[in-house]
Amino acid sequence: MVDKNSFEVTPWDVEGNVDYRKLIEKFGTERLTENLKERIHGNAGSKNFYIDRDFVFSHRDMDKVMEDYEEGDGFFLYTGVGPSGPMHIGHIISFKMTKWFQDNFDVNVYIQFPDDEKYWTRGNKYEDVEKFAQDNLKDVAAVGFDPDKTFIFKNTEYIGNMYKAATKVAKNINNSVVSAVFGFGSSTNIGLNWYPALQILPTFFEEGRCLIPAGIDQDPYWRIQRDIAPKIGRKKAAQIHNKLVPALTGPEGKMSSSKPRDAIMLNDGPEDVRKKVMERAYSGGQITKKEHREKGADLSVDVAYQWLRNLFLDDDQRIKEIGRKYNNGDMLTGEVKEILIEKLNSFLGEHQKRKEKSTKAKKKMMYKGKLAREMWNNKVEI
Amino acid sequence: MVDKNSFEVTPWDVEGNVDYRKLIEKFGTERLTENLKERIHGNAGSKNFYIDRDFVFSHRDMDKVMEDYEEGDGFFLYTGVGPSGPMHIGHIISFKMTKWFQDNFDVNVYIQFPDDEKYWTRGNKYEDVEKFAQDNLKDVAAVGFDPDKTFIFKNTEYIGNMYKAATKVAKNINNSVVSAVFGFGSSTNIGLNWYPALQILPTFFEEGRCLIPAGIDQDPYWRIQRDIAPKIGRKKAAQIHNKLVPALTGPEGKMSSSKPRDAIMLNDGPEDVRKKVMERAYSGGQITKKEHREKGADLSVDVAYQWLRNLFLDDDQRIKEIGRKYNNGDMLTGEVKEILIEKLNSFLGEHQKRKEKSTKAKKKMMYKGKLAREMWNNKVEI
Repeated sequence: MVDKNSFEVTPWDVEGNVDYRKLIEKFGTERLTENLKERIHGNAGSKNFYIDRDFVFSHRDMDKVMEDYEEGDGFFLYTGVGPSGPMHIGHIISFKMTKWFQDNFDVNVYIQFPDDEKYWTRGNKYEDVEKFAQDNLKDVAAVGFDPDKTFIFKNTEYIGNMYKAATKVAKNINNSVVSAVFGFGSSTNIGLNWYPALQILPTFFEEGRCLIPAGIDQDPYWRIQRDIAPKIGRKKAAQIHNKLVPALTGPEGKMSSSKPRDAIMLNDGPEDVRKKVMERAYSGGQITKKEHREKGADLSVDVAYQWLRNLFLDDDQRIKEIGRKYNNGDMLTGEVKEILIEKLNSFLGEHQKRKEKSTKAKKKMMYKGKLAREMWNNKVEI
Repeated sequence: MVDKNSFEVTPWDVEGNVDYRKLIEKFGTERLTENLKERIHGNAGSKNFYIDRDFVFSHRDMDKVMEDYEEGDGFFLYTGVGPSGPMHIGHIISFKMTKWFQDNFDVNVYIQFPDDEKYWTRGNKYEDVEKFAQDNLKDVAAVGFDPDKTFIFKNTEYIGNMYKAATKVAKNINNSVVSAVFGFGSSTNIGLNWYPALQILPTFFEEGRCLIPAGIDQDPYWRIQRDIAPKIGRKKAAQIHNKLVPALTGPEGKMSSSKPRDAIMLNDGPEDVRKKVMERAYSGGQITKKEHREKGADLSVDVAYQWLRNLFLDDDQRIKEIGRKYNNGDMLTGEVKEILIEKLNSFLGEHQKRKEKSTKAKKKMMYKGKLAREMWNNKVEI
């Protein structure tokens, strides 16, 4: 059992029986209030599904992002993915959130591929990192960002344009800080130890405020940015946090590429999805049909229900109905799983179709689009 | 007084009353034997003044460099200078040594300008570092390297071509190693902490063996290179060490740009030189003329004599005669200083003339010469 007092950040703490306020308190972030949600949706002129369902629930300075926007100062988005394996459903959520902001606020998006970091972190060779990067790049391109307002870059490739600016970031970060925040120590290699400078730099790619959509577990890694930004006369990066996407198996932490059997991978075919959901998805239902009809399911720990509610079923009426029926025993786990399988396969089918056709968009976002050309033609200055 | 048992590396320990063997033992380097000196001179077809006078006196794997050369495998040279101030006489010695090897063995020279390191080490802004770099670059160009076989690069400028290779070096160095070798710790910024990867990388610019001519005090900084080279299937860098060039004031360590009054700067004019040598150069002579005529000078601590012997007076007969006469009181300090002033001004005058005309050579060594073009057209691979 998870010790609720230790507040390990599992989505179950969040979805289940634990007080949001304490989690938000632990990280020192702020709750996304109804007021702020309305302000975001009002400015966007559209509702965001994840925000609406409280899957995105916490933030830092999101109010300032809206203030900047309302005053015409704009903002920009920054996200990324470390190419250490094929991507899964959990990875794509921040990208979809990012796309929603781009679509509705018409702003630039910068996407970092820290191939250097993944080379340093794992036992990987660059050939492996590069293989994953090529696949991940297609996934990201398939999300459908504006190819003229999006710049995707691999660190080892773009470094010539950003190294000097990164040295200025690095000058403001000492070893004890990265030790405290990232847990680096004497056995950490000096490459990984330097990487935080490159992770932070893109938050200064534009003069305006940077907004980072990410899982709440990523929050501590931006502490350094918020410490040094005022020292170099720049704005602290804002963040908007989603809950973590649980593994199929449930309460033991978030989905991971290193456990592909317990994750839905973006490359999974319909039969993979069916097999994984049916065999691996943790159920909040009862063991026997009879017992289930009597007691109903515990929705707070049921993966199929939570995924539908948080990520895939945007019909408010229908999710409420499923929740009610499943909770009182009128629906069985298998039925809920079937609905999830259908939603997942539709989502993945569309994604994979776009991924196949992503080559041109990827090229624009990396090299040939308007923003990419600007980034390649200029050195980053801070 | 210097505690002789602690073996602080001052040139006086070396020139004065201390056993060479102990110094070499402390660093674990090897003495440049008469045999090896002959082998170098034989292969070069010419005598090197600094080697001949034992100002260059210690090495690591210099025998292997000669072996590689004799077997037709060649070698290459690597040196550099951190742009943190105007250069002085002490700085130029390693460059002149390097040029001698290039001239006589017809090999490539790589010269690093670690502007990033100097930005990280000192309170400097890049504008200051760049100002010094521009001046230092002219000094280095004035040494007269072969413009088609020499590549001079500033780290922040060349980084795009060498970053990925440097990440491989960095993966083999952990924080505890740079802490032990460079004394880095919790208050060191993460940029400086990463810099050793870039310092080491040029030792792998070619497949052959790298030879680094440098002051013996630099030796420990190459330990890491020699540790990791075998791990990545490359050769350990060889070094050939000169003694340190003393400050004018004598026994308190080596010449430094931060004490320009006690150093002869490459930009000094004839009157500066006269004033500094006359007023600041530590004398081994006696206080009164009468006493001096009786007791003579202590050559081992006399700056003017040592500089002539080690660096500027290549006439063997004449330096012997000066030594004899000064030592027995037949020559006065002022007379020896006059000889040094003449030699220094002739050396600096020629240098400054070449420096004024160095623009074209500098451009070739940085961008347009044969080796420079090769380096810019290819990414460094290790």
